[in-house]
Formats: sequence, structure tokens, C-alpha cells
Amino acid sequence: MKAAVVLLSGGLDSATVLAIALSDGWRCHALSIDYGQRHRAELAAATNLARMHAVADHRVVPLDLRLFGGSALTDSAIPVPAAGAPGIPVTYVPARNTIFLSLALAYAEVTGADAIFIGANAVDYSGYPDCRPEYLEAFERMANLGTRRAVQGKPMAILAPIVAMGKGEIIRRGHTLGIDFAHTVSCYDADPDGRACARCDACRIRQQGFRDAGLEDPTRYQAGAA
Amino acid sequence: MKAAVVLLSGGLDSATVLAIALSDGWRCHALSIDYGQRHRAELAAATNLARMHAVADHRVVPLDLRLFGGSALTDSAIPVPAAGAPGIPVTYVPARNTIFLSLALAYAEVTGADAIFIGANAVDYSGYPDCRPEYLEAFERMANLGTRRAVQGKPMAILAPIVAMGKGEIIRRGHTLGIDFAHTVSCYDADPDGRACARCDACRIRQQGFRDAGLEDPTRYQAGAA
Repeated sequence: MKAAVVLLSGGLDSATVLAIALSDGWRCHALSIDYGQRHRAELAAATNLARMHAVADHRVVPLDLRLFGGSALTDSAIPVPAAGAPGIPVTYVPARNTIFLSLALAYAEVTGADAIFIGANAVDYSGYPDCRPEYLEAFERMANLGTRRAVQGKPMAILAPIVAMGKGEIIRRGHTLGIDFAHTVSCYDADPDGRACARCDACRIRQQGFRDAGLEDPTRYQAGAA
Repeated sequence: MKAAVVLLSGGLDSATVLAIALSDGWRCHALSIDYGQRHRAELAAATNLARMHAVADHRVVPLDLRLFGGSALTDSAIPVPAAGAPGIPVTYVPARNTIFLSLALAYAEVTGADAIFIGANAVDYSGYPDCRPEYLEAFERMANLGTRRAVQGKPMAILAPIVAMGKGEIIRRGHTLGIDFAHTVSCYDADPDGRACARCDACRIRQQGFRDAGLEDPTRYQAGAA
């Protein structure tokens, strides 16, 4: 049975990716990063998802990116904006996917995994440069030069099975594979109980996704939000 | 004045790289990673070097790679071997330079730095795949697809000025630029005071380097070691 590391944020996308990896027969090592994100509900959701699905193990790596700041998600002095601002938004976290994939690469090499799954998505997304296929391909190429396993002729695959899907399609796929999206948190500004704000980019894209999927939105919203 | 992030381990190579970056006129943001390495003396040396030279600031990021293990440097159950074993040695830390460069990339993006200096060396080295020029070029290419600044047309350079130098040449260069190598720690198995073991790969390469440079070795060795 081939093994893979799955980056699991606790959001809708990575939950679907975990379900895809499991249904494709991968033994899954789930990896979450406690990077000082604005709310802990996302990590709690990841832990919950890992428990509900048959993962081999789940590690949470503490790495406080607030030390660098530079994002609304890692600096509480920068407010989360309402949806729709042009350009790359202030919720962009510098080099986040590069850091997360690097940690996944270390974990994959230690566990003998042959692939890393990431829920990057380049369709209904917020304009992050580190979600694009060409970036992911470049990471894979770099990874296959910089590891012991690469020198030993064992390549590592960076797999982003939802990179080209619209949000509605992701939701339909996850739903079919048994993901209960009530247990996922997408909101950039959720309250401590994981209830969503309904106004940030992530909430708007998620709401539209459930409409596109023709499924009821199970998200728990803050009082007066939705 | 152009700014750069300099990865500073406390070893001989990165100390020389810092001196090169400073003498080339870069404003330097030093970055060290507290990754659970076997001894703290290396980090103390980095802090000391940062203080002695005119860096803009010095950050130490806690990131405990013992969570993954898989290396003699991050798992105390794996002994540090004597020098000379064939192949990639057990002191190889999975994806270490990829993780370190990723953190440097985040820091560089936040500080507006245009370059990252790393003391990677592909000549008198221990056979680590993540020290080779082709790996470093692949990292640079990936970085220039995955960041906001890349999308804005501002490239990031990964600079490894000693990558093709022999250890003797590195030592001569650092010496010329005013580095006091007594304040650097290379040993994989230094004692709490930073005294070197004289038998690991890193010690042997360093000793030969001072011989090649025609300079006295200022390294402090453990009693009975040298």
C-alpha cells in the first residue's frame, strides 16, 4: 500500500483531498501546521477530520508564523477584509504553501511516503500565487533534487487533485466521498467555536460553492452573519 | 541599500557567507532555526556572530524537527558516526535546507529583501543533496512562482557564494573578511560549551580546511579529543 502525506488544514478543500487520497487507496499521514492562524477552530476541525477518517496518523507541527507577520491571518493588527478586493489580498501569508510543503516533504521522507497531497486550488480561489499548477510543478522538481530519496531514485509526487476544480465540484466530490462539511472551517475570521463570519472571501466562495453544488450549506454562522 | 536574509547557523560556512554579504553592501537580516539540533552551542554562536557583525536584525525561529526525526542530528537515538562512511550520512536531516529556505523566503518577503544567502557548499561537504547548485536553482525558480512579490515582478535571488569553494578557500575568505572562527561551531556533537569532538565528519572537514588555508585552527576541542 503506497503511503502519502496529506496536508490537512481543517478547511473544505483539504478535507475533500483527504477523502480523494483515501478512496484512491493511499495510506495517509495527515499533517497540520499550527502557524498562529487567527482562530484555533480550523486546527480543531483538522484533528476531528483525521479522527473520523482512517488516517495512519496525524501530526500537528507548531510553527508560529506570527514571528514574521505580513498577513491578515498572522498579524492581528491587519483586519480581515470583506470579499472582493482586487489583487492578491492581505490574507496572503508569505511563502505559506512553500513552508507547508517543505514540512510535508520532511515528513514524507521520514515515513517513506511517495506523494504529498495538497488542497491547492486555482479556480475559485483568492488569487494566491502558491496555488497555481506551475508553482506546484516547480516545487516537485525542486523536491526531487533536494532529498536523499531523490538521489536514491525514488521520486516524490506533489498531488493537487482539486487544483482545476470549481468550488461546487469540490463540494460535490467531497460529499460523494462522505465528507460532512459541517466539520470543516473555511472562514478567515471564525469565532472560537468555529462559527463563520459570512463576509470574508473564504465564506463567500464557500457559500457560492454550496449553491453551485446544489447542496444545503451546513456551515454554522455567527449570530446575524448569514 | 539592498536587503537580504542570511541563514546563519553558527557554523563556519554561514559565518563566512554573512561576512561576504555584508562586505558586498547588503543590509542583512540574519535568520537562525532552533530545530532541536543536538547542541545549543551552534545557536549561541549564531547569536554571538549576529551581535559582533552589523546585521539589521536576527531572528531565531523555533521549529522542532525532532517531531519528524529521521536524522542523527534530530533523533538522539541515532548516534553521530565517525567520519568517512560512504553515501549520504545519517546526519542528513530530511528536507532541512528546503525548510530553512522556505522560512527565509517568508522572512524575505515580509522585510522586502531581494535575496537569500545560504552557506550551502558542494565541495568539501558531507554529500547532502540539498547543497547542490541544481537544487538551489530549482528552489529559486519555485520561489519566483510562489510569492506575491514574484507576481509583482520582483524576483528573489538564492545566493550561495561559497557553493563551489573548498573548505580552505572558505576559511581564507572569512578570515580576510574579519570572521573570528573561534566563535563558530561546526561539530555535530559539540558539548554544551561548544567544544568540538574532533571525530565527526564536520570536525574532520573543518580541521583539513584550516590546514589547507594555512591558518591555525582556533577550534576549542573537548579534553583528549584533538
